[in-house]
Amino acid sequence: MLIIMKPNSTPQQIEAVVNTVKAHKLTPHITHGVETTIIAAVGEFHTPSTDPFEVLDGVESVKRISQPFKLGSRQVHPENSVFPIDGFNVGGNDIVVIAGPCAVESKSQILETAHAVREAGANALRGGVFKPRTSPYAFQGLGEEGLEYLAEAREQTGMPIVVEIMSQVQLDLMLKYVDVFQVGARNMQNFNLLRMLGETRKSVLLKRGLSATIEELLMSAEYILAGGNKQVILCERGIRTFETSTRNTTDINAIPVLKNLTHLPVILDPSHATGHADYVAPIARAGIAAGADGIIVEVHPDPAKAASDGKQSLKPEKFAEMVKQVKAIAEVMGRRIAPINKPVTAGW
Amino acid sequence: MLIIMKPNSTPQQIEAVVNTVKAHKLTPHITHGVETTIIAAVGEFHTPSTDPFEVLDGVESVKRISQPFKLGSRQVHPENSVFPIDGFNVGGNDIVVIAGPCAVESKSQILETAHAVREAGANALRGGVFKPRTSPYAFQGLGEEGLEYLAEAREQTGMPIVVEIMSQVQLDLMLKYVDVFQVGARNMQNFNLLRMLGETRKSVLLKRGLSATIEELLMSAEYILAGGNKQVILCERGIRTFETSTRNTTDINAIPVLKNLTHLPVILDPSHATGHADYVAPIARAGIAAGADGIIVEVHPDPAKAASDGKQSLKPEKFAEMVKQVKAIAEVMGRRIAPINKPVTAGW
Amino acid sequence: MLIIMKPNSTPQQIEAVVNTVKAHKLTPHITHGVETTIIAAVGEFHTPSTDPFEVLDGVESVKRISQPFKLGSRQVHPENSVFPIDGFNVGGNDIVVIAGPCAVESKSQILETAHAVREAGANALRGGVFKPRTSPYAFQGLGEEGLEYLAEAREQTGMPIVVEIMSQVQLDLMLKYVDVFQVGARNMQNFNLLRMLGETRKSVLLKRGLSATIEELLMSAEYILAGGNKQVILCERGIRTFETSTRNTTDINAIPVLKNLTHLPVILDPSHATGHADYVAPIARAGIAAGADGIIVEVHPDPAKAASDGKQSLKPEKFAEMVKQVKAIAEVMGRRIAPINKPVTAGW
Amino acid sequence: MLIIMKPNSTPQQIEAVVNTVKAHKLTPHITHGVETTIIAAVGEFHTPSTDPFEVLDGVESVKRISQPFKLGSRQVHPENSVFPIDGFNVGGNDIVVIAGPCAVESKSQILETAHAVREAGANALRGGVFKPRTSPYAFQGLGEEGLEYLAEAREQTGMPIVVEIMSQVQLDLMLKYVDVFQVGARNMQNFNLLRMLGETRKSVLLKRGLSATIEELLMSAEYILAGGNKQVILCERGIRTFETSTRNTTDINAIPVLKNLTHLPVILDPSHATGHADYVAPIARAGIAAGADGIIVEVHPDPAKAASDGKQSLKPEKFAEMVKQVKAIAEVMGRRIAPINKPVTAGW
Repeated sequence: MLIIMKPNSTPQQIEAVVNTVKAHKLTPHITHGVETTIIAAVGEFHTPSTDPFEVLDGVESVKRISQPFKLGSRQVHPENSVFPIDGFNVGGNDIVVIAGPCAVESKSQILETAHAVREAGANALRGGVFKPRTSPYAFQGLGEEGLEYLAEAREQTGMPIVVEIMSQVQLDLMLKYVDVFQVGARNMQNFNLLRMLGETRKSVLLKRGLSATIEELLMSAEYILAGGNKQVILCERGIRTFETSTRNTTDINAIPVLKNLTHLPVILDPSHATGHADYVAPIARAGIAAGADGIIVEVHPDPAKAASDGKQSLKPEKFAEMVKQVKAIAEVMGRRIAPINKPVTAGW
Repeated sequence: MLIIMKPNSTPQQIEAVVNTVKAHKLTPHITHGVETTIIAAVGEFHTPSTDPFEVLDGVESVKRISQPFKLGSRQVHPENSVFPIDGFNVGGNDIVVIAGPCAVESKSQILETAHAVREAGANALRGGVFKPRTSPYAFQGLGEEGLEYLAEAREQTGMPIVVEIMSQVQLDLMLKYVDVFQVGARNMQNFNLLRMLGETRKSVLLKRGLSATIEELLMSAEYILAGGNKQVILCERGIRTFETSTRNTTDINAIPVLKNLTHLPVILDPSHATGHADYVAPIARAGIAAGADGIIVEVHPDPAKAASDGKQSLKPEKFAEMVKQVKAIAEVMGRRIAPINKPVTAGW
Repeated sequence: MLIIMKPNSTPQQIEAVVNTVKAHKLTPHITHGVETTIIAAVGEFHTPSTDPFEVLDGVESVKRISQPFKLGSRQVHPENSVFPIDGFNVGGNDIVVIAGPCAVESKSQILETAHAVREAGANALRGGVFKPRTSPYAFQGLGEEGLEYLAEAREQTGMPIVVEIMSQVQLDLMLKYVDVFQVGARNMQNFNLLRMLGETRKSVLLKRGLSATIEELLMSAEYILAGGNKQVILCERGIRTFETSTRNTTDINAIPVLKNLTHLPVILDPSHATGHADYVAPIARAGIAAGADGIIVEVHPDPAKAASDGKQSLKPEKFAEMVKQVKAIAEVMGRRIAPINKPVTAGW
Repeated sequence: MLIIMKPNSTPQQIEAVVNTVKAHKLTPHITHGVETTIIAAVGEFHTPSTDPFEVLDGVESVKRISQPFKLGSRQVHPENSVFPIDGFNVGGNDIVVIAGPCAVESKSQILETAHAVREAGANALRGGVFKPRTSPYAFQGLGEEGLEYLAEAREQTGMPIVVEIMSQVQLDLMLKYVDVFQVGARNMQNFNLLRMLGETRKSVLLKRGLSATIEELLMSAEYILAGGNKQVILCERGIRTFETSTRNTTDINAIPVLKNLTHLPVILDPSHATGHADYVAPIARAGIAAGADGIIVEVHPDPAKAASDGKQSLKPEKFAEMVKQVKAIAEVMGRRIAPINKPVTAGW
């Protein structure tokens, strides 16, 4: 930590800073410049907070040197984290393609979609059963009934299932069904929920918040990792900016930045990141070309009748086209879409 | 709702839109323009979603006409909502001044602060007991012990207490203590929590999310109002923008915009909106001058020792100066700081 | 300047940094920490660029310590800059109220507006004669004819005139007429134009760009100050954010932040900062309450017929109401609206 | 245009709107809804402004139906615009790769770079000769001397040259040298400059402003197209958002959105869009995968000694690697990097 003093700071103020540095069990190194004095606080340091220094009299600003995240940092763990979801690995050379409807609406809808996306090349199935809607007057999800349908779809297609958890009270129920917990953008800083998921040993797909920085995303991952759960997948899903021609702005830079900062797998959600079915395929291709370890895509057999997010959902045939393109880009990158090691056990 | 067709849309596509309009029990009115056709969907309409229309073939865009929020709308309820917190009214001519530390740290800290802010002119006390921190390694709050200290501070000073609720599981405990539930920026779209608070009959101070639009804030209020709880106070607390010289950007425009759109009381949090103690007073004055019904301000007896948010906390003497300025601005606006109708029962 | 090395940087890399520091005639101070090494570059330094250090191998990041602006800095010049516009002073205790139409449209329009705003209490007149419009198909301004009308309005009302300059080729013409050059948001980083205005000895009202940081605004002022022209007025006029309920987001924080960082006068444009006539008065009041040295407001005798910006223009009677409110807030702040020392010489 | 009346608007107000519609030679179509009245204004309409309607009493809001840009619209001109730069075509199946230093610094620097990038596969050369710097204390460019060096580089390598124009006064000089005028982000709304370039018959590479919407970029292109110059190339170069881990946020969505809205060629600048040499190659690949018609990349023989933008400049060998990757992605997309039809006439 670097504490930069104001140009006219007094020796007493500098001394107070030095004492605070020592009180935090750090060693102060003082540099007297022409305009100002700088105090470097060196040593083991477990809290990233600059607050106790910023409030001292005579302090101009405080700058952190080390990254505030540790367990997720590539500096600490240089090799990629690779871990299995049911049937294949994430974070290595293989690419994960998660697909399915925004919400599970009926048994036939989810089974039809599951078979269609598996046939098109997907290797995991997504589907929401608790829906957080902006309006209190909209469809709110099927709950446990939806989980049962998803489990049946897994049974038939061999694909693991990815389901969003929205509250601590849903954990016990969901543990019985899901393979991967999804934490949505709105819950990225629901620290109680994150800490609870850190106690489980199931994979967590953690979505970046609408206006969260990349560093904040990594700090949220830290909550899960700190509990001993090392199976965290990060997901860029678009950020909020001034541009209104798309629902969100895909922060494609976040893909190589995250791959540089962390050893965790990083995937892209081109559906939420654009909000328009027409733009999903180009942005999915861009994500893989930029180095993403996978994609998560909304697919619905009849988007015009979808209970939610119809506008950004692909029809199965459009999804199949997209997978072909993604596959071709993956090959150029020296990668492949991970194959599922389980048979399809029922038709549709 | 207005459905605007693409320039080259076919009669079949227009008919499909008309049928969908009718299926939603709305009446279609068609206008054939030179470049395009517009279909107005007229009638009672309970869902704000434009999704079912946007996904139809041939549709260029869909524009909502009516506001998606109803219960909070000034069109529906033209008069200001005025309701009592323990001891005085909010939303009328009087101004509420809520003050206190970010976190309750000890009995002496909260009692000292409570007496100091009451003496300076505050009429309600704030203090967090569950702290959502960006880092898993930071102080996480005192829990019920903190609630007890707050209750004692209320007892001694006569000020109602405002405490943040962060999870559904905290409700029963908090109901025994708090006068006003605060919903923090990160939980503005925690719809399960909002719905639960709508079932209570305690006032709710709902903070705008870091990157939530004004319309989304009003939609979140709708969740609480829909449960029958009409005592919702909206709070602007700064939004995230590209500017980094302050912690957030105070959206001062939101004050008159909200006062125009809704009948609910609107207050400002200049502490989070700026992040610097030096800027709290000017922005508090600006908020009242712009028409806010109150302010909520962080005060700490010794900011340099605060467990959190020390940088933006005012010392009691600075807070007292600020209250004098706010009072003077309020008088120019024809308003006053609401007096508390309860005596101070213990000294500090 | 602080150069922070990567954790695994080599002695050779550190030496290369040290040599680069010396090559820039700075003195290196090295701190070896547990995780990393920090090199402070101390001394007189004329360029704010961190580039030559950031590109060196082994460098993690480079942090500037001193402010990149000098002439505008309050550290360098602690007292407020106060300077006369024709008839009164700016930057001292008095407040400037600049009013007038977006564009000069006709002789009668500008004379009528000038008399109305002077009567209401304005002390300077604004009006555009070259209009930069987003669309090539819109009204583009009256040019010199407009300048003549403005000069006549000054003659009749005694108010100095503020006119936007948009290009270097307009300088000679405008020098004959205007009292204050306005540089619009889109030209805030038109450095050739700024440098040219630095050569004149007329006041410059420099508007913040739509997405310019406060620091960038101060760097642009530096271009004018560096030419020897010390009469620079800074203007906050709203920034672009994700919020769409107003045209821009007033960065009210910028008022106290700028007053803290610089000795230059700071004013607010509530018309562009909101884009709605209904919100101009509350935001003008907020600006003065936050410490602004003045306001610039769009006024039009018949907004429905305005060639541009009608939506955000006040009718003269609404402007008169606003001035009364601003005056009352100014008094609370211990200030007053600057009086004009010249008589009205003709009626309207 | 759709004019939506307030719920309580009067018949007189509706009549005033109808009259204004007719005064603009449009035909009004009135729909009386349950809550409100809507007036559709139908007909040929040459101005995109909604202002004259928004200021009328009783009007809630006004919504444009048709796009405000015409000449650049794909609705008007469904086929891709394809046009030659010296030696090859832009906008068709072939991809343009423009490379070179931020600033021309010396004859040897630009010749060395030109030969290196041509050998690596670039087909056009960039280099700035007038540098707009944020600080008045930084390097400002070589001017005509730089143009002469660029011309010599073109002579030797056969590559056309792309140079930024910053002011109207530079036009005559630059016309003698450059093949493609670049308009920088800060000048995207310098309408006088755009109009002047519309009078020339040289290609214009128009960069999106830092905080310009996609629609505003297309409106700026309209200024050039309206002058009869149809050779406009649009360039996404990153937008300003809250994320600070990269210099800008690449709006990768803008690539497919622009390809959908306009027939003009669209390219990407991964250097400015990221600001870090390490992220240039992944984002260049992403751009081509998303459908861009080319890229423009900063290359410098010795980034550590670059007068500007060294941090984001690639060394020639890194650039050569990137071109190989871009070529492979282009092939997957069924495209190729355009070959130059001119010989190299001198070595380096």
